[in-house]
Amino acid sequence: MITAGKGAMPLYIQIRELLIAKISKGDWLPGDSIPSEMNLSQELGVSQGTVRKAITELVEYNVLRRKQGRGTFVSNHDSQRALFHFFHIVDAKGHRVMPDSKVLRCHRRHASHGEALKLKLKDRADIIRIERVRNLSSSPTMIETITLPGHLFKDWDELDSGNLPNMLYELYEKQFGITIHSAEEQLRAVAATKHDASLLNLQAGTPLLEIERVALTLNKSPVELRISRCNTKKHHYENTIL
Amino acid sequence: MITAGKGAMPLYIQIRELLIAKISKGDWLPGDSIPSEMNLSQELGVSQGTVRKAITELVEYNVLRRKQGRGTFVSNHDSQRALFHFFHIVDAKGHRVMPDSKVLRCHRRHASHGEALKLKLKDRADIIRIERVRNLSSSPTMIETITLPGHLFKDWDELDSGNLPNMLYELYEKQFGITIHSAEEQLRAVAATKHDASLLNLQAGTPLLEIERVALTLNKSPVELRISRCNTKKHHYENTIL
Repeated sequence: MITAGKGAMPLYIQIRELLIAKISKGDWLPGDSIPSEMNLSQELGVSQGTVRKAITELVEYNVLRRKQGRGTFVSNHDSQRALFHFFHIVDAKGHRVMPDSKVLRCHRRHASHGEALKLKLKDRADIIRIERVRNLSSSPTMIETITLPGHLFKDWDELDSGNLPNMLYELYEKQFGITIHSAEEQLRAVAATKHDASLLNLQAGTPLLEIERVALTLNKSPVELRISRCNTKKHHYENTIL
Repeated sequence: MITAGKGAMPLYIQIRELLIAKISKGDWLPGDSIPSEMNLSQELGVSQGTVRKAITELVEYNVLRRKQGRGTFVSNHDSQRALFHFFHIVDAKGHRVMPDSKVLRCHRRHASHGEALKLKLKDRADIIRIERVRNLSSSPTMIETITLPGHLFKDWDELDSGNLPNMLYELYEKQFGITIHSAEEQLRAVAATKHDASLLNLQAGTPLLEIERVALTLNKSPVELRISRCNTKKHHYENTIL
């Protein structure tokens, strides 16, 4: 399972994905304590530092929680909600993958007519626009264009826009008191533009899965419009209809 | 809303879609009686025969129900489940559309390795393969390739394969005692093959949304594999995350 050498994923990311797989398969349940770093490093045949790096990321994403003097525990479902509930992209084996993000641009502008309609704003209202590329399994797989109503995110410009966290919903909640409760998604197949193609290392015209998501608060107010264009060669969107 | 002339949808289909919109918007609730054919024909400015044809189709699909001497009623949610629950394709306005189907081919063959894996069959097991094109808003929009385990659908060959009903899940239930309870879908963007292109009246290479669905019974046995390739120029896949 663990591979090394040129072109392979960094080791700590492989370990991180392996730990996520254990949680999403239910080997480790919410509230369970996980083995110590030393035991995991022996079991997996990697250094303790590598295990620690993987766990530290999962703690940052609220998938795991460290309790002083008691060990590391799988978070409850609420904390995992952001990662597992709203993110439907999985790898060919159906495993949840953790996206990494690189912000390309973050600026203020006026809403287009379509954006205003979707976010229930006035035409040309003040908005914040974030463009970022997300890596899945270490390769650039998604381009996200995120639009936020300026009046809801007043002190946005005080953030270090080059260093935005990977999980934005948590930022919205902690810094702006905005909790995403549900989302409406529209999925279409589109052709990669030249710009998409250069960011995702593929040919212009390649079919991409476009996910247009409007995220809503508990009282159904739209607070974020997110358009994701995904390369589905090695990953796909998973939906269970119950 | 109602349009006529060359290239327009047949009138009764326009009326049918209008009635569906009333139900899916909640203007008419499950259990409600709907206005008489005469009243609807006056209200909508079309002949009573056209209204009757639209209603008859909706009765066939279990969206409406006629009660002798009492009128026509909106079916309960269970009956609408097949149409509204498993079918996630909507038009640009977000309205549910009723798919029509044309069977291209229906034959028995051996399962490929991939099919066998997804349906939990032995390699080269006997399967039934149905290929059909589905019209949405009267234009060919989806190509479906449906694979059924032969041993579960023993008397399949006695059916008139050119005349299969539009809603197959109901057929599975009534004729074979197989009830679809849930489904797992994988969505990807793919390029239209020449074959796809000729069936959907578009250029080869056009991006299509591919939905690969495994339908499951209550005890999670896979009973149908369905691959749908959809033109998403005028329709899209809708998903609400609650």
